[in-house]
Amino acid sequence: MTIPPINPGRLLADLHALRGFGAYESGAHRLTFSREDIDSRRWLADRMREGGLLAEIDGIGNVIGRGPGPGPHLLLGSHTDTQPHAGWLDGALGVLCGLEIARSRHEADLPGNVDVASWADEEETWGDFPGSRSFIGDLDEAGIDAMANRYDGRPLRAALAAAGLAGRPRASLQPGRYRGYLEAHIEQGEELEAKGLKLGIVTAIVGLWQYRIVVEGVQNHAGTTRMAVRRDAGLAAIKLAAAIDRRFPDLAGPRTVWTLGRLEFFPGAPSVIPGRAEMVFQFRDTDPAVLERLEGGLRELVAEADDGPCKVRLETMGRTTPQPMDASLAAALEQAAERLAPGRHQRMPSGAGHDAQQLARVMPAAMLFVPSIGGISHHWAENTADADIVLGCQVLAAAVADLLAA
Amino acid sequence: MTIPPINPGRLLADLHALRGFGAYESGAHRLTFSREDIDSRRWLADRMREGGLLAEIDGIGNVIGRGPGPGPHLLLGSHTDTQPHAGWLDGALGVLCGLEIARSRHEADLPGNVDVASWADEEETWGDFPGSRSFIGDLDEAGIDAMANRYDGRPLRAALAAAGLAGRPRASLQPGRYRGYLEAHIEQGEELEAKGLKLGIVTAIVGLWQYRIVVEGVQNHAGTTRMAVRRDAGLAAIKLAAAIDRRFPDLAGPRTVWTLGRLEFFPGAPSVIPGRAEMVFQFRDTDPAVLERLEGGLRELVAEADDGPCKVRLETMGRTTPQPMDASLAAALEQAAERLAPGRHQRMPSGAGHDAQQLARVMPAAMLFVPSIGGISHHWAENTADADIVLGCQVLAAAVADLLAA
Repeated sequence: MTIPPINPGRLLADLHALRGFGAYESGAHRLTFSREDIDSRRWLADRMREGGLLAEIDGIGNVIGRGPGPGPHLLLGSHTDTQPHAGWLDGALGVLCGLEIARSRHEADLPGNVDVASWADEEETWGDFPGSRSFIGDLDEAGIDAMANRYDGRPLRAALAAAGLAGRPRASLQPGRYRGYLEAHIEQGEELEAKGLKLGIVTAIVGLWQYRIVVEGVQNHAGTTRMAVRRDAGLAAIKLAAAIDRRFPDLAGPRTVWTLGRLEFFPGAPSVIPGRAEMVFQFRDTDPAVLERLEGGLRELVAEADDGPCKVRLETMGRTTPQPMDASLAAALEQAAERLAPGRHQRMPSGAGHDAQQLARVMPAAMLFVPSIGGISHHWAENTADADIVLGCQVLAAAVADLLAA
Repeated sequence: MTIPPINPGRLLADLHALRGFGAYESGAHRLTFSREDIDSRRWLADRMREGGLLAEIDGIGNVIGRGPGPGPHLLLGSHTDTQPHAGWLDGALGVLCGLEIARSRHEADLPGNVDVASWADEEETWGDFPGSRSFIGDLDEAGIDAMANRYDGRPLRAALAAAGLAGRPRASLQPGRYRGYLEAHIEQGEELEAKGLKLGIVTAIVGLWQYRIVVEGVQNHAGTTRMAVRRDAGLAAIKLAAAIDRRFPDLAGPRTVWTLGRLEFFPGAPSVIPGRAEMVFQFRDTDPAVLERLEGGLRELVAEADDGPCKVRLETMGRTTPQPMDASLAAALEQAAERLAPGRHQRMPSGAGHDAQQLARVMPAAMLFVPSIGGISHHWAENTADADIVLGCQVLAAAVADLLAA
């Protein structure tokens, strides 16, 4: 096994060059199929070709660079689109680490191949993982027809045509080509930093279960309606949310997270008793049994609330399956981390969704996290120390070397 | 004492004619100084003149009709502007009952005079009781300069000019002219209907104390931020609102009402821990000591919340003084109610604000409520049975007769 000497300066220069497409403050605003995003995909394909890969942009916008040689293959990737006014690393880190490893190995003429992918639209400007789902065969033409821009409603088909991608074939997984898929990513949390660690080996990507809770009461005058006769939808929502906050710690696992991110009162006027309230509530865990238990608890609390003066109903918005990472790939990442940063790594779940959860459905997959300064994510101030970026790439390169040599 | 035979058909016809200005469903949309509102003021001034009054529209939009004869005077009134898409009665009832009583007495050539007023903008399209406050001398030119449309921001001065009122003198109270002010109004609640009563004699208009509560936490990713390190502004707001709900019943008086009408999370996205939450909270009571006690309790709860993971601060938006009604005028209304509807009336506070609270600062004032069907108010479906409207006007006419004869 030979670990290629990756070029830290070149990796960082590429990351900064990619940030130039849609630069915003110290981050980037590069929504999928915006002008900046399309330009960045062409730039990436050119970089892949310069690095010795056979590159294409496929019919859904995936940028895929394939190693040309014989021998075993690994797939490395992530995504280069961003959330609005978001950070410069996020998915870009994993794509450009993959590129750096592939071209370092190419330059060193090492055996085996690394393919590199930037999956289209991980940030869901248009849909639910269209790029990686297309690659694994989980997105049909009707699914593409149904996708539209979450911000302005434009159909995905129109954007693909404008980008010159309409009618192009979509890349799909060649069965048996890969020993596995590896994705590097920023942690997006503060845990590694808080513990003084440098690397996270992802054990599983959480399942995300999300619900709309609708409370219907009776809108009325806040001055003339006695307390005893009110059916205050806002108050019923408050009481339910407070009950969830009291109950969930007993039902949760040690790493469960739950969030009430949206709560709205209607009409929302100071002198009007709310006639309606709507909430969006979600929880995440890697254990399906925990998710089931939490949903059961939530249903009980909603039923109790519905017995009060207002009508309360629960609508399921989504329930994704927790996706364990492959134990062998994770072990390879852990061994590489231990060699390069002894004692400064840990196993941990990913609380956010990633393309790896799609790839893991069809091949062994694993993920490596690097620390996020202050835990900031999906904000232009997102950052990771240069040394941590480089260390992450070196660990990934070492694991790749192990896996291709095995 | 002679009670004039008011003309029920004429009263109801006038109410329906007034509804025609801005008719919306079975209600009316007649915002102050809209085209419909200005037309309705001219129509009202014409009706006053036909009824034997000397009518003017003054420089703030008040429509005032004065009885021309000698002898004691009473002032009757309310307002003819509406909330958006609101009911046909609300303030219109009190104005047109005043008009009907004044012209019935004029036709019967009874001694004494009834002046009638429609105070401009009780519904606060432009400001805080500009019409009645102008009349009692509590609104200076700078105050008018500062007022603007709450919906579109247009300055009040521009609207007055467009209505042809710029430069007109503003009517003001002639000291000693009136024995008192009487205002009829719909209850806007369901209490009279629920108790099978027909008339409410208002004992006091509540003070309304209103606050903005701002909670500041740390916005972060809902998947990658562990529960233990969160500073969730939404959750802190929920807990504070639930604590208010638990604490306030012990602090409140028997008729206190309190309402959280507005609660907003920022940014309000399902997968983002709210970094900021804002609430508008209000309470109302007729007893200043109760209001003080409630504010004290609120301040304690906010301070406790501020000791948690988020910063919580309380901003006072407004604190109006409870306004007791005049005991002699209220007794006159009560005696008239007992004569015409024995046992079917009660004393009660007004939970809503009315022009009477401004007039009460400078002369004896009292109010009479008629039932609201289903307690509906500030909605086009607002209504009162014709018979209840007529009974209210007859009771008011009887009280007027007593007071002018005294």
